[in-house]
Amino acid sequence: MKVYKRKNRLSAQEYIDGVLSGSRVILSRAITIIESNLESDKVIAKEIIQAILPHSGKSIRIGITGVPGVGKSTFIEAFGKHLTQLGHKVAILSIDPSSQRSKGSILGDKTRMEELSNNENAYIRPSSTGDTLGGVANKTGETMLLCEASGYDVILVETVGVGQSETAVHGMTDFFLLLMLAGAGDELQGIKKGIMEMANMVVINKADGDNIKKSEMARLQYQNALHIFPQPESGWTPVVTKASSTKNTGIDTVWEQVLKYKALIDQNGYFLENRNQQNIKWMYNNINEELKHLFYGSPEIKSKLSALEHDVVSSHISPVKAAQSIMESFKKISKKI
Amino acid sequence: MKVYKRKNRLSAQEYIDGVLSGSRVILSRAITIIESNLESDKVIAKEIIQAILPHSGKSIRIGITGVPGVGKSTFIEAFGKHLTQLGHKVAILSIDPSSQRSKGSILGDKTRMEELSNNENAYIRPSSTGDTLGGVANKTGETMLLCEASGYDVILVETVGVGQSETAVHGMTDFFLLLMLAGAGDELQGIKKGIMEMANMVVINKADGDNIKKSEMARLQYQNALHIFPQPESGWTPVVTKASSTKNTGIDTVWEQVLKYKALIDQNGYFLENRNQQNIKWMYNNINEELKHLFYGSPEIKSKLSALEHDVVSSHISPVKAAQSIMESFKKISKKI
Repeated sequence: MKVYKRKNRLSAQEYIDGVLSGSRVILSRAITIIESNLESDKVIAKEIIQAILPHSGKSIRIGITGVPGVGKSTFIEAFGKHLTQLGHKVAILSIDPSSQRSKGSILGDKTRMEELSNNENAYIRPSSTGDTLGGVANKTGETMLLCEASGYDVILVETVGVGQSETAVHGMTDFFLLLMLAGAGDELQGIKKGIMEMANMVVINKADGDNIKKSEMARLQYQNALHIFPQPESGWTPVVTKASSTKNTGIDTVWEQVLKYKALIDQNGYFLENRNQQNIKWMYNNINEELKHLFYGSPEIKSKLSALEHDVVSSHISPVKAAQSIMESFKKISKKI
Repeated sequence: MKVYKRKNRLSAQEYIDGVLSGSRVILSRAITIIESNLESDKVIAKEIIQAILPHSGKSIRIGITGVPGVGKSTFIEAFGKHLTQLGHKVAILSIDPSSQRSKGSILGDKTRMEELSNNENAYIRPSSTGDTLGGVANKTGETMLLCEASGYDVILVETVGVGQSETAVHGMTDFFLLLMLAGAGDELQGIKKGIMEMANMVVINKADGDNIKKSEMARLQYQNALHIFPQPESGWTPVVTKASSTKNTGIDTVWEQVLKYKALIDQNGYFLENRNQQNIKWMYNNINEELKHLFYGSPEIKSKLSALEHDVVSSHISPVKAAQSIMESFKKISKKI
């Protein structure tokens, strides 16, 4: 493998060669370029993506979600280890739109997935940050392509918490896995129907020790609950299993089901159809980000906005009317660009 | 009260007069105009909002959230009844970005808040629908102004589930109330730190019968948990209480705390400061919606997009490059508008 000198920025070609050669260091640095908001980096980022695109796509992309406390990190650690033992190269990404005030999730990231982070066939990249879920999702999508071009054939995209980020992750993966716990009676509590509906598989985690019986009951309840949903387009009937990440039971079943699903959707054409639809959505996400960039990047708009903020606060103008007024300005400015 | 003839659309002035006179029928129809996506309705909607703006704002806006199953509807029914008995006029709105596939929440809306819906001092308006959370939030914000102009002095904005809609509701209310249940051990599970942080008050609901002891324990746990957060800007220390919506206990305490909070933030200036910041954010939400409208409303863009979708699916162009290409077209088109 080529040795790269550490300097501030490489050329686009150096990033491309490094990623394609499987260099983890260059992969990490290329992802940093993707995540950057600097104009000069954005230009390089586009060049990288365009060049690696023909080498991407050849992986199975698995979204993993579940409420905090469900044991997501431990599950991913066990699942990732299992996959590397089977000879796969596994990339673990995450989508976590920062919490509004403190920018972070309730559990620290430091102690997560210790074993996997030392495994040379696993690549863990913490969540990129950003103001909008759309922006974060675009960047995670591009990161996924880079990992694929770098030889990772299983991509795990983890999402933290129960919210709109699940929809984003579902929109960029082939298989969507929901982790649940055997709860205290009301099994469906706290998880929205929309998320249950997206799941190709529900895994009752922490099914060990005293918890095994409760987990089997929960498994049956979920299996029944899934019957109320319409037949998914993929033709796949969602399965519910139980697993223990700490005892390493049921982990192999998860992968077997993923392979079974992949075989089905390869055969019936859903795999391709779904990826096509995802690419179209991705195009729209990109457009929306570019559009905001065009608008808010204009110096004239910026100065007008700060004046309007002042007028809104002093009640000289309503927020709705202020928006109308700046749009009129934008139309005028656009003529001059 | 004036009697209005039922016809397809009224004039803007008729909507304005009707809303200001407190007509529930006209209020409902005006909200329908606000929610409409028809161009002609949008023009009227802006006129209505601009006219009623000076009459809006004189209410306390309370956001209410909690996971499905926490008893939100029953709580709002009990709370709303208590408020009307005190002589208040209460409007109940909700924000519910539809689930991706089935457009709806897991519990039906039919049987909710039966008593309150027959109370003449309460006005219940189901969630407006829309493609984006931003769009839905803008419309709920405007609906709130209409209700205020129509004489409602307490606005309850309910949000369904645990996700990004909480941030939207928090961004448009003065007081944010989180409903919780005494759970099975892990009290913090399933609720994100970001949502806990936004809460001015946590109410342990269903604190009745066998559940009272557990609820008191949960109350203490949450009160301790809230200490880990930094002091909020409002200067208010969040309180945790317990309530039973069915036994009607603790409901009066909730209102007492709201009034105590309001007195504090009126005095220290946070009430005004917060509403100003919310108005600025609202201006930006409006701008973002208008911007999308300007772009996607263009017939040239529409036809180019459908061609690009085709090219993306047939792998002639990458989603990222397709987005770049349409942005170039948009810049050219803008010069001609």
